[in-house]
Amino acid sequence: MTSNVGYTPADKGILIVLSGPSGVGKGTVCKALRSCAPDIVYSVSATTRAPRQGEVDGVNYFFKTREQFQQMIAQDQMLEWAEYVGNYYGTPRKFVEDTLNTGKDIILEIEVQGALKVKQKFPEGVFVFLLPPSLPELESRIVGRGTESEETIRSRMSVAVDEIAMMEHYDYAIVNDQVDLACSRIRSILTAEHCRKDRIVSKIQHWMAEVKK
Amino acid sequence: MTSNVGYTPADKGILIVLSGPSGVGKGTVCKALRSCAPDIVYSVSATTRAPRQGEVDGVNYFFKTREQFQQMIAQDQMLEWAEYVGNYYGTPRKFVEDTLNTGKDIILEIEVQGALKVKQKFPEGVFVFLLPPSLPELESRIVGRGTESEETIRSRMSVAVDEIAMMEHYDYAIVNDQVDLACSRIRSILTAEHCRKDRIVSKIQHWMAEVKK
Repeated sequence: MTSNVGYTPADKGILIVLSGPSGVGKGTVCKALRSCAPDIVYSVSATTRAPRQGEVDGVNYFFKTREQFQQMIAQDQMLEWAEYVGNYYGTPRKFVEDTLNTGKDIILEIEVQGALKVKQKFPEGVFVFLLPPSLPELESRIVGRGTESEETIRSRMSVAVDEIAMMEHYDYAIVNDQVDLACSRIRSILTAEHCRKDRIVSKIQHWMAEVKK
Repeated sequence: MTSNVGYTPADKGILIVLSGPSGVGKGTVCKALRSCAPDIVYSVSATTRAPRQGEVDGVNYFFKTREQFQQMIAQDQMLEWAEYVGNYYGTPRKFVEDTLNTGKDIILEIEVQGALKVKQKFPEGVFVFLLPPSLPELESRIVGRGTESEETIRSRMSVAVDEIAMMEHYDYAIVNDQVDLACSRIRSILTAEHCRKDRIVSKIQHWMAEVKK
């Protein structure tokens, strides 16, 4: 009873996976989060594509040879990976886990299929789905991107609707009506997740052990 | 696809039950919440004790006769109730449900045993456990209350430790190290709970129905 052992703040970070349909504004929200929540670390992807001018290894990407990347896949070092236009892209597990072990939260912005793969390998992550304010609003964002044909727009909307159905597999859903509101909701989710009973119980086991002496 | 049906904000409130061991500061946190979160409604208890000077029916308490109170118990209109020193005290279900139906969140501050009874009747509530920064800190708060004997203090601490073990049945645990931090964590939990996928899925069912047409 006279122990001075107190509460230890959560010493492990949380992986938050931010996903949602194409056109919903994941990148914009992440960019805004960087200024409003500078304490969150951003996951760095690995790729086999060549670095562009100014890109720094370990900051923009982890640049890998095909052989290195394939070995990482074989050794289960990728939380997810995919091949686009002849290059591999993926999320190295080690960077995520090293960050969590320092007590920092890490955010991974990723499309819907990739997020579902991450969930299989890392179910303890917090999966957040970003929603458009409405379907017509999503359509206007997709249209607003460029000069796509009506056919292309219809096809993209169809994909987006299929992706929204994937929301079922997520923990939270946030409407991206205002970027600053979306950011503050993400921060609230992180705060709340740090207060989940199971996280705290493990912190105060030593109180109980102390008391039972 | 051309529907103007958009996202409807969550139209039902959340019941948040704030509990924790005696001496942890539930009342202080609730008082602080009243100023920092004036949008949250406070649950009003029913009692059979006589109103004191200045107490208003429906504000401080719902004042009931013993017969009325017993009838409410019989009709399952109490989320929990108990008898202290010859008077009944309880939480009327109707006030909680009416508030939730207006879309407002409602907070119920209650001791640990009462909270567990509420959970049986209202499992969809969000159960938050308030923890002291440490056991010695809780002891000093209990000691600081008055001139209790060492025996009484030891007995209260023993009850408090048993109550802390009840944390297992809660959704969240918050350390009451600083009152303003505890308040902001409670607000974050409410925001996060409003973003839970299941709450949002039911809101956008009509999108999906619309799209499948």
